[in-house]
Amino acid sequence: MKIIIVGASGTMGTYLSSAFEKEHEIVRADRSGADVQVDITSPESIEEMYKKVGTFDAVISTAGPTFVGPWNKLTDKEFRQGIEGKMMGQINLVLIGQHYINAKGSFSLITGALTHDPQKNFANASAANGAVEGFVRAAAIELQNGIRINAVSPTVIENSPQYFPYFPGDIPVTMKQLEFGFRKSAFGANTGQVIKPH
Amino acid sequence: MKIIIVGASGTMGTYLSSAFEKEHEIVRADRSGADVQVDITSPESIEEMYKKVGTFDAVISTAGPTFVGPWNKLTDKEFRQGIEGKMMGQINLVLIGQHYINAKGSFSLITGALTHDPQKNFANASAANGAVEGFVRAAAIELQNGIRINAVSPTVIENSPQYFPYFPGDIPVTMKQLEFGFRKSAFGANTGQVIKPH
Ligand SMILES: NC(=O)c1ccc[n+]([C@@H]2O[C@H](COP(=O)([O-])OP(=O)(O)OC[C@H]3O[C@@H](n4cnc5c(N)ncnc54)[C@H](OP(=O)(O)O)[C@@H]3O)[C@@H](O)[C@H]2O)c1
Ligand SMILES: NC(=O)c1ccc[n+]([C@@H]2O[C@H](COP(=O)([O-])OP(=O)(O)OC[C@H]3O[C@@H](n4cnc5c(N)ncnc54)[C@H](OP(=O)(O)O)[C@@H]3O)[C@@H](O)[C@H]2O)c1
Repeated sequence: MKIIIVGASGTMGTYLSSAFEKEHEIVRADRSGADVQVDITSPESIEEMYKKVGTFDAVISTAGPTFVGPWNKLTDKEFRQGIEGKMMGQINLVLIGQHYINAKGSFSLITGALTHDPQKNFANASAANGAVEGFVRAAAIELQNGIRINAVSPTVIENSPQYFPYFPGDIPVTMKQLEFGFRKSAFGANTGQVIKPH
Repeated sequence: MKIIIVGASGTMGTYLSSAFEKEHEIVRADRSGADVQVDITSPESIEEMYKKVGTFDAVISTAGPTFVGPWNKLTDKEFRQGIEGKMMGQINLVLIGQHYINAKGSFSLITGALTHDPQKNFANASAANGAVEGFVRAAAIELQNGIRINAVSPTVIENSPQYFPYFPGDIPVTMKQLEFGFRKSAFGANTGQVIKPH
């Protein structure tokens, strides 16, 4: 399979790229662009990426910027970070990518436990996650040609110790569990699911 | 109690305004403005509304425009209708309104069954609902002074027969059930809940 990993240089993306490159052709995408550049906050940039990559079978997205910070600083302006990044960035990967992906291809988007299990400082991510998960369920009944879509929704991951203090009592998801969540999404037959790797 | 009903002239808003005005002081708000004008797509307009209304105890929002239409017409542009309307419109009612509402006040936002039970043509609403519900859970652990927040999430309502064809097999929620959903949200003690009236 030819798989575009968006956010390939990040904590999740680095791990997933090396895990999947043993079996698949990986196209690493992010703003610096190991293989191809993309800024997911721009629909034009997304369209350009797909045009450059040519045919492919799967998109795995681990790119989802949001505003993280104290509630009393959260206004419409900060909220836009999660809207343009994690929400519309990923939704546009699908709305545009559906015209380029091979039949029976799949989109795997990143959300997170914050959708249902909020933590202080992360309201923007809770909203963006909720939007992406609602979209995933709706897109699953609309996409044509056997194209599938799922979200992968871990709690804090073991390779991000900098976030542990924000997630008291949450047992970190191992990188292997995260990988298996994306495996289920990209290589299984389900669609419209929110996969919780643990 | 003094309650601002945003979207007071709509199908839900009309019913709820007359149901609650027997027991409470109702301020009817929407773009035409029976009592006060507001365009929820504009943070400035929301701020102005709160300034005009003075102190109040509850906000009930039934205003939530989204794009309804065929999947093949859904691009970033149409998606913005639900973002600016149902999502950020309602989120800004809270982010701004928290500075004006009385202690122990409450925000009751509208979402809908589409969050988890998608229908064709409504992907924009599924995403906006999911965002609002994620936000409601996050805001509940952040709001101060005993201020509460919930979402009310009905399936199609009995007074909207024009939507019945889009919701095959969904037993319409009665207006009385809808009213009781908002009663639970505004007058109960819960917070961070998604209330499904049925
Ligand atoms: N880490 C956790 O514990 C955890 C747990 C649950 C959910 N999540 C979610 O998972 C996602 C990824 O987390 P992570 O820790 O792997 O993040 P990360 O290390 O910050 O990596 C983010 C990746 O996305 C890319 N990126 C950022 N903005 C972009 C844009 N506008 N266009 C294209 N690429 C962009 C970054 O590369 P460039 O900056 O070079 O573009 C990088 O490759 C986030 O949405 C996060 O909320 C994380
Ligand atoms: N009807 C159903 O069966 C059903 C079921 C589940 C969920 N819902 C959701 O419930 C909400 C209300 O439904 P409804 O059927 O009562 O809608 P509606 O009859 O169209 O009423 C919408 C109300 O919101 C106001 N409004 C629209 N845009 C506004 C804006 N930018 N700023 C301020 N006010 C605005 C409208 O007045 P103006 O145009 O004068 O501003 C009107 O008062 C929607 O979000 C819908 O998705 C509906």
